[in-house]
Amino acid sequence: VTDNVAAVLHAPGDVRIERRPIPEPGPHEVLVEIRAVGVCGSDVHYFEHGRIGDHVVRAPLVLGHESAGVVAGVGSDVRRHSVGDRVALEPGVPCGSCRECRAGRYNLCPDVRFFATPPVDGAFANYVTIHEDFAFALPAELTDEEGALMEPLSVAIWACRKGQVGPDTAVLVTGAGPIGQLAVQVARALGATELTVTDVNQHRLEVASEGGASRTLDVSRTPLAETDVEADVLLECSGHPDAVREGVRALRPAGRAVMVGMGPADEMEIPMAVVQNRELWLTGTFRYANTYPAAIGLAAAGRVNLRAIITGRFSLEDTEAALRAGRDDPASIKPLVVPGAAPA
Amino acid sequence: VTDNVAAVLHAPGDVRIERRPIPEPGPHEVLVEIRAVGVCGSDVHYFEHGRIGDHVVRAPLVLGHESAGVVAGVGSDVRRHSVGDRVALEPGVPCGSCRECRAGRYNLCPDVRFFATPPVDGAFANYVTIHEDFAFALPAELTDEEGALMEPLSVAIWACRKGQVGPDTAVLVTGAGPIGQLAVQVARALGATELTVTDVNQHRLEVASEGGASRTLDVSRTPLAETDVEADVLLECSGHPDAVREGVRALRPAGRAVMVGMGPADEMEIPMAVVQNRELWLTGTFRYANTYPAAIGLAAAGRVNLRAIITGRFSLEDTEAALRAGRDDPASIKPLVVPGAAPA
Amino acid sequence: VTDNVAAVLHAPGDVRIERRPIPEPGPHEVLVEIRAVGVCGSDVHYFEHGRIGDHVVRAPLVLGHESAGVVAGVGSDVRRHSVGDRVALEPGVPCGSCRECRAGRYNLCPDVRFFATPPVDGAFANYVTIHEDFAFALPAELTDEEGALMEPLSVAIWACRKGQVGPDTAVLVTGAGPIGQLAVQVARALGATELTVTDVNQHRLEVASEGGASRTLDVSRTPLAETDVEADVLLECSGHPDAVREGVRALRPAGRAVMVGMGPADEMEIPMAVVQNRELWLTGTFRYANTYPAAIGLAAAGRVNLRAIITGRFSLEDTEAALRAGRDDPASIKPLVVPGAAPA
Amino acid sequence: VTDNVAAVLHAPGDVRIERRPIPEPGPHEVLVEIRAVGVCGSDVHYFEHGRIGDHVVRAPLVLGHESAGVVAGVGSDVRRHSVGDRVALEPGVPCGSCRECRAGRYNLCPDVRFFATPPVDGAFANYVTIHEDFAFALPAELTDEEGALMEPLSVAIWACRKGQVGPDTAVLVTGAGPIGQLAVQVARALGATELTVTDVNQHRLEVASEGGASRTLDVSRTPLAETDVEADVLLECSGHPDAVREGVRALRPAGRAVMVGMGPADEMEIPMAVVQNRELWLTGTFRYANTYPAAIGLAAAGRVNLRAIITGRFSLEDTEAALRAGRDDPASIKPLVVPGAAPA
Repeated sequence: VTDNVAAVLHAPGDVRIERRPIPEPGPHEVLVEIRAVGVCGSDVHYFEHGRIGDHVVRAPLVLGHESAGVVAGVGSDVRRHSVGDRVALEPGVPCGSCRECRAGRYNLCPDVRFFATPPVDGAFANYVTIHEDFAFALPAELTDEEGALMEPLSVAIWACRKGQVGPDTAVLVTGAGPIGQLAVQVARALGATELTVTDVNQHRLEVASEGGASRTLDVSRTPLAETDVEADVLLECSGHPDAVREGVRALRPAGRAVMVGMGPADEMEIPMAVVQNRELWLTGTFRYANTYPAAIGLAAAGRVNLRAIITGRFSLEDTEAALRAGRDDPASIKPLVVPGAAPA
Repeated sequence: VTDNVAAVLHAPGDVRIERRPIPEPGPHEVLVEIRAVGVCGSDVHYFEHGRIGDHVVRAPLVLGHESAGVVAGVGSDVRRHSVGDRVALEPGVPCGSCRECRAGRYNLCPDVRFFATPPVDGAFANYVTIHEDFAFALPAELTDEEGALMEPLSVAIWACRKGQVGPDTAVLVTGAGPIGQLAVQVARALGATELTVTDVNQHRLEVASEGGASRTLDVSRTPLAETDVEADVLLECSGHPDAVREGVRALRPAGRAVMVGMGPADEMEIPMAVVQNRELWLTGTFRYANTYPAAIGLAAAGRVNLRAIITGRFSLEDTEAALRAGRDDPASIKPLVVPGAAPA
Repeated sequence: VTDNVAAVLHAPGDVRIERRPIPEPGPHEVLVEIRAVGVCGSDVHYFEHGRIGDHVVRAPLVLGHESAGVVAGVGSDVRRHSVGDRVALEPGVPCGSCRECRAGRYNLCPDVRFFATPPVDGAFANYVTIHEDFAFALPAELTDEEGALMEPLSVAIWACRKGQVGPDTAVLVTGAGPIGQLAVQVARALGATELTVTDVNQHRLEVASEGGASRTLDVSRTPLAETDVEADVLLECSGHPDAVREGVRALRPAGRAVMVGMGPADEMEIPMAVVQNRELWLTGTFRYANTYPAAIGLAAAGRVNLRAIITGRFSLEDTEAALRAGRDDPASIKPLVVPGAAPA
Repeated sequence: VTDNVAAVLHAPGDVRIERRPIPEPGPHEVLVEIRAVGVCGSDVHYFEHGRIGDHVVRAPLVLGHESAGVVAGVGSDVRRHSVGDRVALEPGVPCGSCRECRAGRYNLCPDVRFFATPPVDGAFANYVTIHEDFAFALPAELTDEEGALMEPLSVAIWACRKGQVGPDTAVLVTGAGPIGQLAVQVARALGATELTVTDVNQHRLEVASEGGASRTLDVSRTPLAETDVEADVLLECSGHPDAVREGVRALRPAGRAVMVGMGPADEMEIPMAVVQNRELWLTGTFRYANTYPAAIGLAAAGRVNLRAIITGRFSLEDTEAALRAGRDDPASIKPLVVPGAAPA
């Protein structure tokens, strides 16, 4: 590919296909030719609303942060990669020396530069550059498309890690969208055997069953509170206030509630008396840290099945359709933009 | 003392002084002659309302669970104590073999028998019995009155432990009642140097300053949100919803919010977007576990000053006055019932 | 079964089949008719030497502590089980209130009563009694023989837990005996994908490969130090000083070395400069705590394959042959005593 | 100061005072005029032997890594500091993006550039440059000399953190040199009240008593094994094999042994049976991470007394005498090089 075509968001609903210069990698950077990019709910939210909370799209922005590709060039000081290496990209490059970075919480670095978060461009393009330490070699067992999904898989791994999921934890996953599906698969891969999933979409619950859920619950028919579901870990992937509240109430003493889905408002009613009397722990996830090696390991060993959640492939020129896929198709879970695909 | 006099709650506001048989210790129990008992907010709540949440006083109940005394008799299998030993009593004896006990979380044991929690009688009496392993020898450095305060000191230690208080944590204590005061002292004893305390009572803030607070804030004049206070740990000791919300908002990334005070309702509005974006951890405390040795060690070494919070001494006959002291006197922090004291 | 036959060790090499009274369960105990018992290396060691370290067999002792069976009677206060329940037995019942028990480390309780550790009899018998909370219901998915192996499986789970095994840890298991085999299987079940096993017995290495090892190494041909094996966790299951030393040297920065196998002497040469420069953590395991629910969950869900390590079944009358099986047959991994089996 | 004078090690025993160009700070660096530098045992070891393990002095090297000074210049992108700020220097600047750095273990970064470790020059000089994030503002409460000691104080904090020192841990410090003294003070500041120190030098034991030790032991007279000392945490600051072995044997179940002192050889005899039977944890420290804010906080609040360990001040020209002070004077604990001091 000798051109760099990018899908650029100019305003809510306004994505344009544009030609841009191929970027030059800095001394510690690699140039990557993108082969696959997942569409995330945050991409869709920027596309529809032009902002997420305080992050406002003020200048044209390339979306896409779930990506993999091939190294097409290397900066002068690069030691880790060579041209031709297949790599998955961890899309946030932190400063490396602030309080958060030094403590190993680099996902909370205030100076992180994260793909597709204003004003940093993302990966709906033929080429991007990234620090070599944030490009991870993909083994032969993994396709480019699977490589792109190391990013949402990281979100799921991070949630499981915060919840301390293991063989002695009953897990409740509320919301069976792409992250919920991966949370189920990762929880299973970490040894969880009691694994309940809730949603209101029967198709998604079936996919979750295939992914390892031991029990599924359509909460549009039976509210969680009317069941006997108990859990040690809540992985809340819906953002729905009822799911949060009922999920917390379902936790056993010393249980952990990990909020992954973003709610509709800044504040939320939480059953604090339950939190206190059972000494529960509530937290949330913001991206992830130190997850890519685990993600690649699990996927390469076949412990998770990423193909099960891929529900569409779109050319770079059809990025807008990819962004609309979730609204258009209730069976959509994870659409991909594949630059090498033929346009529709 | 050859009689066993007890102050018995029959109904809200109705405490009667009654003579009861001296209890017989079981094989692993010690008989303890009580020398001092602290009055806790929960005692006052039972006295005023006859219940705390689901715990309802249905039969006459002896209140009081912050106690120390002298061993006056031992059961047949007792190895740890002898008659004459001065002891502080940890007032909750768990089953020792359930899931929670086996995991070291015995404070969450569903079968715990806890002083002054229906239907288990407490320590506003001349004599009680308790399992020998829940009576802790008091060193000569500590008075009986200080021994009684090992219990609220334990609450403070537990809160600090959950919050992971140390020399690298800025601490915010909201609410400077007895627990808030001890939380300040314990945080200081664990190495915290940046230590802000809020309350609406100027006298309490002054006591907190003497106890080690590096900054005090009268939030009736200046709301926390209008200050530049930041913290890594919130020890919420007021139960006030505003304190919770503003306290959580004041936390730095990866901060911990520990809810010690009980709120007015089962649910509470929590700034969940902040929890998620900063990956905060929220939890609450329910009593404590494995704190008595630390409490005794800190107090005996003079690292905390328990006398600073004792604000009144009442005879056993005047237990009702002790229970009313907090309402009657705004300077009251921790009244004590001292069975050996002369009645008013 | 109306008799209680037991295999009783009288002196090194002297096991006698004797008739004993059926024991009476205490108020919180269940009477269990034993259906299967694994032979552990410690049983063999007592059989051969009459002692393990400070534990000396001074009076006739029933060996066997890996057991499962059926509840045949219940004490007056038993709530958890009924006659007819199939149960796996956790063989150590701790005091429940000492420092270690209260901290959740009940495996370190100085007053624990543990099957087949002098002077407490074990399970090579038709009947035993045990506290109801240390009998765990077996689901239909598990056979009695698998139930008996919840005990060695617990050892493996405990080792993995101490080593913090997960998808981001490369694991090295040294020694592919029964515990090493289970350590491999559990590590795999917890998400480990890079999983090297060493031994000097080719057959055992093949079993380990089937159990999930990604690489096996016959260290009689190629010493570990001559390979490029690196790990984050060492699960040392051989007790061999060379395995310890080379295993520790193979650890990456911040790695954990968990010594499960007992060495030939009290002291051992450890490469402390490596421990310091890489800030490794070294520890050992002594039995296990809080593992049975995880063991049963993993086994019932088919995440581990216990049948793969069972290499022989002996009647209660043939207990001595079971104790000699390891010496007699190099392919032996885990022989079982099955009281219902026909004598040889 | 308009010149940059440095004390340069050319060969074992050969330190020369030389004039060097004042270094230019890079974009993110500050230029610091050094005001005080502590002499560390590692400086002395390089001075005497020209190497420490694999680190060999092959070219002239400036020693000194415990330093504080005043910002004298700033790079183009510096945001944190201004000329005139007083700062303590954390002497190791890691890469910020390797596996160890990303995990928060930046002290284990293989590409760290650390003062006075070949080939990186140290701080026995008038001027050095350092990344702005590794210069920490000193509050007015602290002198320059105390600022220099933030480095050894960090070693002590790191050791206490690894050992999880707190009010419920009995602590044993073996070796009362500068690090042992600070370990005692920090342990006390973190709430430890049972705090035993061993050495063979009576003067050092007296200093330790003043620093907070509750018990001191001259092990040249009474070996540790002949006492009843028990501990939950061993902070081993002597490097002596007997101290290691006896210290480990003194640990209670689940205790932690933290090896701070370097031993005379790569390997050491460790009582592994004790480690296993009590499930102890052994580890070592390699420098420290994330300690400077805590160090400054503790020192500024007067929780540690750094002046108590300063035993000499030498001008830059007298650096060699400072390096020989420990050998020359048995009462020497921590000599300082103070560039502004008058030469002897």
